[in-house]
Amino acid sequence: MTLKLVYDFGEGNAAMKSLLGGKGANLAEMNRNGLPVPPGFTVTTSGCHAFFEAGRRLPYAVEQQIQSALERLEKERNQRFGDPDNPLLVSVRSGAVTSMPGMMDTILNLGLNDKTAEGLASLTGSERFAYDCYRRLIQMFGQVVFGMESIHFETMLRRLKKQEGVESDQDLNGDAWRRLVREYKEGLLRHTGRAFPESVYEQLKLAVEAVFQSWNNRRAQVYRKINGIPDDQGTAVTIQAMVFGNRGNDGGTGVVFTRHPSTGEKVLFGEYLLNAQGEDVVAGVRTPEPVSLLKSRMPEIYRELEQAARQLERTGRDMQDIEFTIEKGKLYLLQTRNGKRTAQAALKLAVDLVEEGLITREEAVQRIEVSHLEQLLHRGIDEAAVPEVWVKGLPASPGAAVGRIAFEADTAEAWRREGKPSVLVRPETTPEDIHGVVAAEGVLTTRGGMTSHAAVVARGMGKPCVCGCEAMAVDLERGELKAGGKVLREGDWITLDGASGRVFPGRIPLKEASATRELLTLLQWADDIRRLRVFANADNPEDAETARRFGAEGIGLCRTEHMFFTPARLEVMRSMILAESEEERRAALDQLLPMQQHDFEGIFRAMDGLPVTIRLLDPPLHEFLPQREELERRLDESGSPEERERLKRMIRKAESLHEVNPMLGHRGCRLGIVHPEIYDMQVEAIFKAAARCIEEGIKVQPDIMIPLVGDVSELKVLRGLVEQAAEQVLSPDMRAHCPYRVGTMIEVPRAALTAGSIAEHADFFSFGTNDLTQMTFGYSRDDAEGKFLSHYLDKKMLARNPFEVLDSEGVGQLIELAVERGRARKSSLKTGICGEHGGNKESIGFCHRTGLDYVSCSPYRVPMARIAAAQAAIEEAAALTFK
Amino acid sequence: MTLKLVYDFGEGNAAMKSLLGGKGANLAEMNRNGLPVPPGFTVTTSGCHAFFEAGRRLPYAVEQQIQSALERLEKERNQRFGDPDNPLLVSVRSGAVTSMPGMMDTILNLGLNDKTAEGLASLTGSERFAYDCYRRLIQMFGQVVFGMESIHFETMLRRLKKQEGVESDQDLNGDAWRRLVREYKEGLLRHTGRAFPESVYEQLKLAVEAVFQSWNNRRAQVYRKINGIPDDQGTAVTIQAMVFGNRGNDGGTGVVFTRHPSTGEKVLFGEYLLNAQGEDVVAGVRTPEPVSLLKSRMPEIYRELEQAARQLERTGRDMQDIEFTIEKGKLYLLQTRNGKRTAQAALKLAVDLVEEGLITREEAVQRIEVSHLEQLLHRGIDEAAVPEVWVKGLPASPGAAVGRIAFEADTAEAWRREGKPSVLVRPETTPEDIHGVVAAEGVLTTRGGMTSHAAVVARGMGKPCVCGCEAMAVDLERGELKAGGKVLREGDWITLDGASGRVFPGRIPLKEASATRELLTLLQWADDIRRLRVFANADNPEDAETARRFGAEGIGLCRTEHMFFTPARLEVMRSMILAESEEERRAALDQLLPMQQHDFEGIFRAMDGLPVTIRLLDPPLHEFLPQREELERRLDESGSPEERERLKRMIRKAESLHEVNPMLGHRGCRLGIVHPEIYDMQVEAIFKAAARCIEEGIKVQPDIMIPLVGDVSELKVLRGLVEQAAEQVLSPDMRAHCPYRVGTMIEVPRAALTAGSIAEHADFFSFGTNDLTQMTFGYSRDDAEGKFLSHYLDKKMLARNPFEVLDSEGVGQLIELAVERGRARKSSLKTGICGEHGGNKESIGFCHRTGLDYVSCSPYRVPMARIAAAQAAIEEAAALTFK
Repeated sequence: MTLKLVYDFGEGNAAMKSLLGGKGANLAEMNRNGLPVPPGFTVTTSGCHAFFEAGRRLPYAVEQQIQSALERLEKERNQRFGDPDNPLLVSVRSGAVTSMPGMMDTILNLGLNDKTAEGLASLTGSERFAYDCYRRLIQMFGQVVFGMESIHFETMLRRLKKQEGVESDQDLNGDAWRRLVREYKEGLLRHTGRAFPESVYEQLKLAVEAVFQSWNNRRAQVYRKINGIPDDQGTAVTIQAMVFGNRGNDGGTGVVFTRHPSTGEKVLFGEYLLNAQGEDVVAGVRTPEPVSLLKSRMPEIYRELEQAARQLERTGRDMQDIEFTIEKGKLYLLQTRNGKRTAQAALKLAVDLVEEGLITREEAVQRIEVSHLEQLLHRGIDEAAVPEVWVKGLPASPGAAVGRIAFEADTAEAWRREGKPSVLVRPETTPEDIHGVVAAEGVLTTRGGMTSHAAVVARGMGKPCVCGCEAMAVDLERGELKAGGKVLREGDWITLDGASGRVFPGRIPLKEASATRELLTLLQWADDIRRLRVFANADNPEDAETARRFGAEGIGLCRTEHMFFTPARLEVMRSMILAESEEERRAALDQLLPMQQHDFEGIFRAMDGLPVTIRLLDPPLHEFLPQREELERRLDESGSPEERERLKRMIRKAESLHEVNPMLGHRGCRLGIVHPEIYDMQVEAIFKAAARCIEEGIKVQPDIMIPLVGDVSELKVLRGLVEQAAEQVLSPDMRAHCPYRVGTMIEVPRAALTAGSIAEHADFFSFGTNDLTQMTFGYSRDDAEGKFLSHYLDKKMLARNPFEVLDSEGVGQLIELAVERGRARKSSLKTGICGEHGGNKESIGFCHRTGLDYVSCSPYRVPMARIAAAQAAIEEAAALTFK
Repeated sequence: MTLKLVYDFGEGNAAMKSLLGGKGANLAEMNRNGLPVPPGFTVTTSGCHAFFEAGRRLPYAVEQQIQSALERLEKERNQRFGDPDNPLLVSVRSGAVTSMPGMMDTILNLGLNDKTAEGLASLTGSERFAYDCYRRLIQMFGQVVFGMESIHFETMLRRLKKQEGVESDQDLNGDAWRRLVREYKEGLLRHTGRAFPESVYEQLKLAVEAVFQSWNNRRAQVYRKINGIPDDQGTAVTIQAMVFGNRGNDGGTGVVFTRHPSTGEKVLFGEYLLNAQGEDVVAGVRTPEPVSLLKSRMPEIYRELEQAARQLERTGRDMQDIEFTIEKGKLYLLQTRNGKRTAQAALKLAVDLVEEGLITREEAVQRIEVSHLEQLLHRGIDEAAVPEVWVKGLPASPGAAVGRIAFEADTAEAWRREGKPSVLVRPETTPEDIHGVVAAEGVLTTRGGMTSHAAVVARGMGKPCVCGCEAMAVDLERGELKAGGKVLREGDWITLDGASGRVFPGRIPLKEASATRELLTLLQWADDIRRLRVFANADNPEDAETARRFGAEGIGLCRTEHMFFTPARLEVMRSMILAESEEERRAALDQLLPMQQHDFEGIFRAMDGLPVTIRLLDPPLHEFLPQREELERRLDESGSPEERERLKRMIRKAESLHEVNPMLGHRGCRLGIVHPEIYDMQVEAIFKAAARCIEEGIKVQPDIMIPLVGDVSELKVLRGLVEQAAEQVLSPDMRAHCPYRVGTMIEVPRAALTAGSIAEHADFFSFGTNDLTQMTFGYSRDDAEGKFLSHYLDKKMLARNPFEVLDSEGVGQLIELAVERGRARKSSLKTGICGEHGGNKESIGFCHRTGLDYVSCSPYRVPMARIAAAQAAIEEAAALTFK
């Protein structure tokens, strides 16, 4: 039996996504459910594989099955493909398994040629309509199949409008479009050396091949890379009878969301254009009307649309994004898919759907894209600091962004590599700009609506976006952005507020948002579900308070060195480093002690009743001295002999402290071993702070963490130091109220390997996955990212950046091994991670599976981590169910 | 029953070493065998433990048992301890389990006080003798028990001699000695506040306590550290009746080796002094006569000594070092132990003893101290370059040394830390100088014989030593060394030849020695025994030839970057790095290719039939550029505009290549991935060289090694590059003759962890233990050794320097795991190590136990490695036998 490679809509259903693609499966399902879908059929993803296996050629079996399906379609529509008297026109679209909006190519109006166009004109009585369709076909076909750039078509169209003396496409008549068709065809031949095929079957074959081909175009590859979609999934192709929204004012086209994609509110939300094809909406060339207006204009259609929306939502168990067309007063649904949404909308939706009984709490938690929470929790404009608004556009994707104006995606990408934040500013964006959106802090366009490319893509990535900001003029050639008499140039600072659509010149301070009811509800559900505890990294009382507000169950990492970086303290720290005698050093340390103690007290108060993990001094001492060049410059400029003496001492000290590989040098507990007086001071400050807080009635739980242990002897010695300090500082009564623990960062591979013996002297292990990753890979992060890591990622030699997503294959092995050996030696051992990975979803999943007790991340990531931890628990439960 | 803590000689035997110490056990054994040993008894090492457990006090049980033993000794000698009429005098000596020559304290003549001294004088009829003994006791007791410095005693003695107008101690009469005794006692009280005890029992108790105490003195600790002796072994104390060699010219004392300790020749070798006590010989104050002269002077005694020597050698199954004393014409053996020997003697002895049927071949191999082989294989004076001899001393320990003159041990140690080679120059050395001997390249003394402290210690360490160089005058105060009208100052260069005793001012070129018959025999035996193969590291044809001469079975590491470091090549290399276009870079590479090819040809020829492991470029490119400061200096000085332009380019390039942690930066295969043209060139050069050699009829086996792989994808890509080059360069026929392999260095922890997948694309693993140690510990060797590692070693936080001895606990785990996983995936996988550890005995043992196929080390270490590999096999067999 021949393999079935083509399915009519009537033959499929929603479950056949991997075969029919998301689009094909949904259309089939809609058809099954009696929704008004134009008929059609789908070439399966197996067809795509066959195409690539045959050396990028459409195999005969596929061609044959398309032919049969086409014949059935002709029958159903009562039209004939290529028949000038009654031409069947079709759309050809890609349909990947995972929705990839704007990524794959689409061709509409296929089936038009010189004869059928003429036929369509007489059939519809509108030459204008027929040749508008035809020129659209030639343009799309030319771009997608023959690879001609859109600018050529646009130039020809612009020239035509100039000749005709009109502003808008609407104002061109049939004859003008007919002339454009001729020009397009000539242009196509001139630019690509290939003629537009008059044979409609040839058109179809080439179009299907082009869609398959487009699976491997650059923007699709970029999208898959960003979204972690496997390269071998392949795409299906859906061929569907065309319906036309641009055959007069009793037609139109639009996009509707079943709920508001920015807020999640339960209202139909969307836009439509009368007398238009779908391309017009998506491209953002004309600014459409809100769908609510349709209610008064076409009440029947609106009601039908509303019903269909509800039905699709129930079937899809999620908010839907529906494309529709009205042809001569009849509604057609062209496609539906789960709608992209803002973080805020996603939360509201998840909670609402649970309350409406459509999904479970677990599903609701599972649906939250943790990376999107950042949108809610980070970056809003600090309203207190807001100057007058410069201009305002559409609030297309919430969150605020501050960056330098980049007019080209390549510029934004280049600046990203240099660490310069940018805002991508374009008249409108196209899929070609996607790497610029990835690189930029936010996106600003002067054209296009809430469902324009820029808006959809930005929301998908959780990037702030303001679009359709028509009060603004972008002059790409001169590199200027003008509005209200003010001119900004490329590289100037600009601030966006994607939540309100406001745009400001310069840099506006940002502020963090507070949690919504829905977020609190979801977090509560997540807390009920998760097993992993979530701690935060905080180096001062303010951060500790924020962390607790976000639900941190403790401090997983307090970096004591950060307490030394204010100017006054830095001076004392330097005196300590420069000290030439034990006495001098102790004097400086005596000054530092009360400063640290004060900070510790604040943190203990903020975390009353919760554990506070304090890491003793970690960085090499030279990090506290100014750069050599800076010192020499100051020496050249300085007059005072004392100052010069001190500078010279600093230079000598900096020289003696200089290291070839500071990452692997004299830092961490190696400092504590060689200079025990520093750790002595820190531990004394911790216990004095604890004592003070205990007197105030606060419950303290200091977990003292020794960094960079590589051999048990280091921990043994320094544990002794801590215990001695506890005895000296705390009265026996106090000690009873201060159940301190001593543990270590596991960040050196050897520590993981010898975890068994280390556990004998440790109450807890905290995996310092930043350094552990550096040493396990032998990558200095400072050097790798600029020099070879990006190359490795581009060439897919590494699937993910190991500094972002924990490398479970290598680094993860060390963690598993250390946890296993550590627990075997001491069952009460507490384990967690405190590297940047603690705020990364996949890495949190790894920590859950490995059985760690907690993850620790930055305060703003705590909610994300709570969700991610719950998701890991849900996935685990699901995996167990499958077994 | 009370624990027995004291054993008479008659109660012990040779097997009771750990209880009686080496000295006590040997004396007991000698006594058992009817050899003429003065009677005595031993306080056991358990007594030592009891002493320390009791808080450094002699427990009552020990005192009591000593008392009983003393009574038995009185009976046997027919003398009474403390009896002026017939006083028993004893020696008190330490006796550690492992011989520690000169390390522990000894007191002679104990039992003398004002009354018994007077008694001894009348009994012997010699006031001179009695008071000489007495003053010696006071001095030794004062130093050992009360800690008074020897200089004070020497000053008093010098003053006395001056007063008396005599040159030599021999010339002082009884009255003079009697006055000295009074002065010594007064001095003792003045300097230490303690009076010399008149009670002989008090003397004995304090002396025993002092010996126990001395187990923990600094020089003993240093010795144990150097020799790897456990700190908790403890020492025994042997108390033995005194016999006197200094009661007239019918007495004497000496030291005899049963074979020549420098050559291993089967002759009695040693020195004696007539009318002297043992101290006189060891201290090197008087220059003694060779023992051969005794044959004519006291033929009976000599014969008896000869017989005893043979008997002791048979019992000990090794060459013996015997102390003897002749008292009034009767021979006494004071102690025997295995004699220290030079490397050369050790080899001859080992081979001779096998041939004499005393030991097996395995025992012979097992007895070779691999570290001593260095003495034979490294460093001899290049006779072609030898100038006139300046002065000549005794050839005390073979090998040649070049260094700067250091007059103090502390200076030598300080210079060592700065990397400055030194030669320690002293009138004579004492145990206080031992750290200087460790630090120096060699030792030169102006006084003392072949068995003086300096000579014994230097031979023990395998350091070159010239001693008794009396033609030379050392003026410590002025810091000058004078001889033959020439003056050298501290810091000046000097060269020693310990094999001939010659000393040269300045730096003389050194040359390597060739192998002796005994070495070749032993190596042959070792080769028969060992399983581990031994390769060498060689970067050029000359080293490859040397390696093969020393028995290397292949090249384990050829560092291709070393081929770029000659000035002409470096220029081309720099052009390659500075190239601004692909074209320019290729042009430079085209110039480098024939240079590399030429070297590879030479190496293939040298290793005809054996594998040659070639590592592709490893160091970061900036290592090939001059230092930034150097470039700036040259820029300041340079006039030519082209030169300035090039310098500026280099500065810009150096800046762009600068790395924060170069160790973990853009190097190894990361270069090959980002700049494949470099590796392309290298691989092409390898295959072109192979083709040329194959044409000459040479058998080539190139093993191409990819450095710093951390993920299998790197190896996969670069293996592809190698295979492609092979196809391009080699004809199919050639390929059949060029069975190349592609493998990787395992030097990044992640590579070891993911060894399973890496093995799929690797034919061999070579463990780069230098980098693997750095990354596993998180130690940058450049920074660690100067900054904290020495501290760790001093404080015994790490037992051994992991860069010298492979850390089996941590790094070793990774190696074991990688071997296991690699072999599980590919059973034919070849494994070896090529770090510096490949030349270290313990590390070689680890490699054997882990089942590696080979170790690779520097050419001169190949013989050592062959022996060490055999020793590992023998130890393994022994361990299996015990099981």
